[in-house]
Amino acid sequence: MNNFNFFSPTFFVFGKGRENEAGKYVKRFGGTKVLIHFGSGSVIKSGLLARVKASLKAENIYFTELGGVQPNPRSGLVYKGIEICKKENIDFVLAVGGGSAIDSAKAIALGALYEGDFWDFYEGKQIEKALPVATILTISAAGSEGSMGTVITHENGMLKRAANGEPLRPVFSILNPELTCTLPNYQTACGATDMMAHVMERYFTNTKNVEITDRLCEGILLTIINETPKALSKPNDYEARANLMWAGMVAHNDTCGVGREDDWSSHNMEHELSGLYDVTHGAGLAVMFPAWMKYVMHQNVMLFAQFAVRVWGCEMDFENPENTARQGIECYEKFMNSIGMPIRFSELGAKSEDIPTLVKTMGLGKNTLGSFVKLTEEDVAKIYELAV
Amino acid sequence: MNNFNFFSPTFFVFGKGRENEAGKYVKRFGGTKVLIHFGSGSVIKSGLLARVKASLKAENIYFTELGGVQPNPRSGLVYKGIEICKKENIDFVLAVGGGSAIDSAKAIALGALYEGDFWDFYEGKQIEKALPVATILTISAAGSEGSMGTVITHENGMLKRAANGEPLRPVFSILNPELTCTLPNYQTACGATDMMAHVMERYFTNTKNVEITDRLCEGILLTIINETPKALSKPNDYEARANLMWAGMVAHNDTCGVGREDDWSSHNMEHELSGLYDVTHGAGLAVMFPAWMKYVMHQNVMLFAQFAVRVWGCEMDFENPENTARQGIECYEKFMNSIGMPIRFSELGAKSEDIPTLVKTMGLGKNTLGSFVKLTEEDVAKIYELAV
Repeated sequence: MNNFNFFSPTFFVFGKGRENEAGKYVKRFGGTKVLIHFGSGSVIKSGLLARVKASLKAENIYFTELGGVQPNPRSGLVYKGIEICKKENIDFVLAVGGGSAIDSAKAIALGALYEGDFWDFYEGKQIEKALPVATILTISAAGSEGSMGTVITHENGMLKRAANGEPLRPVFSILNPELTCTLPNYQTACGATDMMAHVMERYFTNTKNVEITDRLCEGILLTIINETPKALSKPNDYEARANLMWAGMVAHNDTCGVGREDDWSSHNMEHELSGLYDVTHGAGLAVMFPAWMKYVMHQNVMLFAQFAVRVWGCEMDFENPENTARQGIECYEKFMNSIGMPIRFSELGAKSEDIPTLVKTMGLGKNTLGSFVKLTEEDVAKIYELAV
Repeated sequence: MNNFNFFSPTFFVFGKGRENEAGKYVKRFGGTKVLIHFGSGSVIKSGLLARVKASLKAENIYFTELGGVQPNPRSGLVYKGIEICKKENIDFVLAVGGGSAIDSAKAIALGALYEGDFWDFYEGKQIEKALPVATILTISAAGSEGSMGTVITHENGMLKRAANGEPLRPVFSILNPELTCTLPNYQTACGATDMMAHVMERYFTNTKNVEITDRLCEGILLTIINETPKALSKPNDYEARANLMWAGMVAHNDTCGVGREDDWSSHNMEHELSGLYDVTHGAGLAVMFPAWMKYVMHQNVMLFAQFAVRVWGCEMDFENPENTARQGIECYEKFMNSIGMPIRFSELGAKSEDIPTLVKTMGLGKNTLGSFVKLTEEDVAKIYELAV
């Protein structure tokens, strides 16, 4: 096991009706002038936004609003949010929505305390401070409610880039599984795929002797595999939604990833896909992950066999573990299909002739991607080919 | 799943040699006048205390020391520590040791900011503030390095009582698995037993549909079951120690217990045992847990069967799940014996004629103990009988 630090100071407020406590927690965490940041009209139509505002009013907390966050959130709205924060001396950003609203809120919180262009942080500048961010989550997926990450797409070139830093961990996050019951099945499935990817990108590692995090990863994957079909067949299944919602948080606050090298190649390759085609992140991952697994499997066949046996319940082929390893990847693909996810380029609307563009935009050059297997540009192209 | 809050803001510093960063983190978390609190001479002999002091000196941080914490830590030393804090205006308590040193440090941190008797908090007074506490852990067991709990034995009547409150969560905890490599096997095994109990007291619940925490609990148990024998047969096995150390933290910071009713009956029944006979907490748990399980099993045979199948790898007896459930309890007992733990009163030096005293000291009266099955004094007596 590698040395590590683990710090997850977010206060999680979980359960039915708890968005009505938003005002109480904004106050507890020192917010006095709040920017409420959200996405589509659904948070308005569902009455969620009104409940949140009522809760802030009840505590006499000033707020202003900025809606309109798109999936794969864009830089344009971030600049607008930063301007509002600076003009109105906002001291707290409250995201209401999914990963996109939260990631956009984190970007605004970063930019609000920075004189330069917020995009600097997405090009590698170290994060030292940000306004406090809190979240009211409406979809189990990105894990941004407990993570220190944010992903934004810059409209200049449609570059999708991530930034990470401790000040971006939400001070509190309200997780009410009821809010996810109205999601279209496609969104639920995309969310589950994203959550599984967060676990698997930690699971496939070269670090040896990490049983505790192996087991935690497997437990989270098993939960997602069992609970997602329940949520799809009965969208109002509160219990399935609740299990998925906590799984999504634990999958990404690093509880299950500490002490081991992780590998975000699939996420990175997907970012290029959704940057170019604006596909849903989860759907892009469902396509990229099996391709990556097939390409890197020989790095550690026994780890892939363990994945097959413990997560998918495959029988171990003791004479030929590679068969078991392959079976695990097939199970993942079949599961993805069963929940309505694509597993090939064509299902996404992606085209094989764009592969050179995808590789070029990634901008690896002579560098490599990932750690489980260090991928060159040539490797990346081959993985995209496997996904065709 | 029940509604819940989850807040685990401790900064964990994990890995080889990391005790040398103690000064850096005390400074980061605002400590300027530190009480170093520890137990036996082993932290002196091993050189650990000297390294910690050097690290504080390097940051020009003032400190004073109070050693001598005993297993099942006593009120007498707590009173002494509180006096030192008040006299010297201590603003930070740094525990170096295991659960006893940490729990004693938490009690001192509580009392230092309180005009009355610190014992009030162990008799149910609500905890509102305490000095910041940090820990340098030397044994994987109590989970106090990430929990908000403390257990102290009052010398007046040898009453062993717990107190819980958010201000008791350590601000940082340094976990270096190397420090646990010199533990006697008996202590390692007692620690593993305590950790397993922390998980099982969350696992056996009446709350339905809590797959995510079921799976996390099972993952932690599997890790402890696989890694403990490695640490016992080869005490210097850093990897086994590292897995156990993180398992012990996750077992008790509530990651695996949120959203479900827990039941601390076995811990409570053990507290009476170790209060009366001063036995090691883990050893007492190894005796009390199977007795409790046998007594309450019929509350939910399928949950006990799940425990047997998923944790112990038993074959499910689909015709008679009760057989499987019993087999799981037997596996637990056999495992306890295999790591050198007692499973009967006689092995502990406890006597059946003391059962009325144990029941009386607990002071249940007309109240009940626990939640999975609400135990009356009569039930508690019967469970002690099963342990004879």
